Amino acid sequence: MRPAGFVTLLTDFGRGDSYAAQMKGVILRINPEAVIMDITHDIPPGDIRGGAFVLMTGHSAFPPGTVHVAVVDPGVGSRRKAVIVVTHEGFFVGPDNGVLSWALRGQRVLRMISLANREYFLPAPSATFHGRDIFAPVAAHLTMGVDPDECGQRIGSIIRLRYPHPRCAKGRIAGEVIHCDGFGNLITNIESGLLTGPRWMIAVGKRRIGGVLRTYADVPAGRPLAHIGSSGFLEISVNRGSARDVFGMGEGLTVLAVRE
Amino acid sequence: MRPAGFVTLLTDFGRGDSYAAQMKGVILRINPEAVIMDITHDIPPGDIRGGAFVLMTGHSAFPPGTVHVAVVDPGVGSRRKAVIVVTHEGFFVGPDNGVLSWALRGQRVLRMISLANREYFLPAPSATFHGRDIFAPVAAHLTMGVDPDECGQRIGSIIRLRYPHPRCAKGRIAGEVIHCDGFGNLITNIESGLLTGPRWMIAVGKRRIGGVLRTYADVPAGRPLAHIGSSGFLEISVNRGSARDVFGMGEGLTVLAVRE
Amino acid sequence: MRPAGFVTLLTDFGRGDSYAAQMKGVILRINPEAVIMDITHDIPPGDIRGGAFVLMTGHSAFPPGTVHVAVVDPGVGSRRKAVIVVTHEGFFVGPDNGVLSWALRGQRVLRMISLANREYFLPAPSATFHGRDIFAPVAAHLTMGVDPDECGQRIGSIIRLRYPHPRCAKGRIAGEVIHCDGFGNLITNIESGLLTGPRWMIAVGKRRIGGVLRTYADVPAGRPLAHIGSSGFLEISVNRGSARDVFGMGEGLTVLAVRE
Repeated sequence: MRPAGFVTLLTDFGRGDSYAAQMKGVILRINPEAVIMDITHDIPPGDIRGGAFVLMTGHSAFPPGTVHVAVVDPGVGSRRKAVIVVTHEGFFVGPDNGVLSWALRGQRVLRMISLANREYFLPAPSATFHGRDIFAPVAAHLTMGVDPDECGQRIGSIIRLRYPHPRCAKGRIAGEVIHCDGFGNLITNIESGLLTGPRWMIAVGKRRIGGVLRTYADVPAGRPLAHIGSSGFLEISVNRGSARDVFGMGEGLTVLAVRE
Repeated sequence: MRPAGFVTLLTDFGRGDSYAAQMKGVILRINPEAVIMDITHDIPPGDIRGGAFVLMTGHSAFPPGTVHVAVVDPGVGSRRKAVIVVTHEGFFVGPDNGVLSWALRGQRVLRMISLANREYFLPAPSATFHGRDIFAPVAAHLTMGVDPDECGQRIGSIIRLRYPHPRCAKGRIAGEVIHCDGFGNLITNIESGLLTGPRWMIAVGKRRIGGVLRTYADVPAGRPLAHIGSSGFLEISVNRGSARDVFGMGEGLTVLAVRE
Repeated sequence: MRPAGFVTLLTDFGRGDSYAAQMKGVILRINPEAVIMDITHDIPPGDIRGGAFVLMTGHSAFPPGTVHVAVVDPGVGSRRKAVIVVTHEGFFVGPDNGVLSWALRGQRVLRMISLANREYFLPAPSATFHGRDIFAPVAAHLTMGVDPDECGQRIGSIIRLRYPHPRCAKGRIAGEVIHCDGFGNLITNIESGLLTGPRWMIAVGKRRIGGVLRTYADVPAGRPLAHIGSSGFLEISVNRGSARDVFGMGEGLTVLAVRE
């Protein structure tokens, strides 16, 4: 995998402080040609699972060789490892706490490295801001062609966050909402590939929603629908409204698909 | 109009998800040299009029030839068209639902194209995320010099959002607030060019505010004033405060200008 | 100091309007090669002190020669000056109201210029948006190598915002919280250099917190700790929680360090 010069950032730093900007400054000091793109800085503080979801849906649009840096890192400064994962798509850099793991689903992992070579860190790294002091400089060096193996030791595995697979029986899939987006769309763990065959009936909690439709406008305004969302998961939405508001909750809500 | 390599994005996607980033990734995959700037991703969900206002005030600062992509698109996947409008200033790409229309006021429209050539879309576009699958790749191709005519068929008109013109009688202009900004400034539909002559008295609802002043500091802290805002509209503000808070509402509020 | 081609922006404009984007458009019109980075646009409206703090912590990560533009400017259009400060690190551009002053602590100031040469402003600058009409174009010209002296007259001083130094007695430092970040960390005005010697006991208000630890994970989840934060100040945090929530307030809270 050759670096492309692109770096994406995903953090829980919010937008009101200078933390994300400090990471960008460090990257540009090392590689003034790097092109830095935000995925988001609005992961709820410490929400590793939320970060893992957004990285999973966001990374694949970027050019091959992009360096993706994900910093949702409540254990910063403890003994948790810091890692690079090299895949056939690009580079993933962050704490070894699971935040990278969902993005690796379906990717061919080529190498995993535990960061150890302080030559590629800032001098005297702090104990509370590895985003700036370790992950940003390592990412910048990767964009310049530094071999990931230069950055530390190979490891055989990283921490994998449990992925909530739906329970599938004959003609029946019991899933759940794993993410609620800014529109109030409820994104489930039921991947489109599971919904083969002629027709499935979808229920949210105890409420029957109907079949799997194409898009919001297939129902009248204010009405819920099930459809395959843009990341390939079954999604519950409300045309011109918010499914989260209609169903009163988001993550964890049960969604059932039954073949008719 | 020759493309400049710049793309701006205006959406209602919010900042907590990866949707805006996915658009950027798609653009960079097609044109790694493109320079992408956010106008905003914080248009309220589905607020076409809000998007139209912010695009109208935001686009003209950018270099000629910039490609402006605006995606406030509650009808995505329905039969609404997807369009490129070429003007003497640049390129405007988005759904044909009015979101582009206010930005075109005062511009010379050179061509309007209904997007149809799937060669410039992502393969197998989704029905719910044309921002990523249609508008972003078309915009990226435009930055590379693809002729807009290659992207679809010429059309004679696009959907125009009703623009709320003020009612003007002799020495009397009845306008309204059409946007409330993040400071609580109330921006009206009364353009500076209408306020000719020596002196106008401004009233908000039934409350007289006074004449048209230069800037916030022309009144004591906490006091409202009328002035010509930075986009050329009469604006109601409060020095070191929020006019929205003082007047209890924003959009739709009546503002009257009477020549003295 | 030679310009590096980088511009950072720090404002209180928020993200829902096009104001920040208008500044970027103006910069790119003048220097299409400029690389523009946001520090933040989420300073609370008119909060000069908040802007001063975030600029102070954010600027130094960027490459030497970066042009830092800070626009928290409630007095825009009044008689307050507009200035460039040239230091051994870079260029600082903004209103002369103190927002730049904390960032200059510890820097060698080489020149201070009061902006006056309208050749480097937009034509017919507005009275309410100097960010777009004065600061952005001046910054863009600086990135192109325009000599700061071309932009106006040398001045001998700028307005300094009072910096809240802690009161230090023998073995006892009385400080206060000067910033609360998005995680709820309480950042004090007690710099790490003051906490020399073997061991200090930290108290917040009347509550004893303990010694100065390394990182969040040094206490159990939900427990407060004192540590040296990533900007070199004593900081009060809660492992996997928010110190602001625990202590019920942020800025102004008294923090005491006593040598044991």
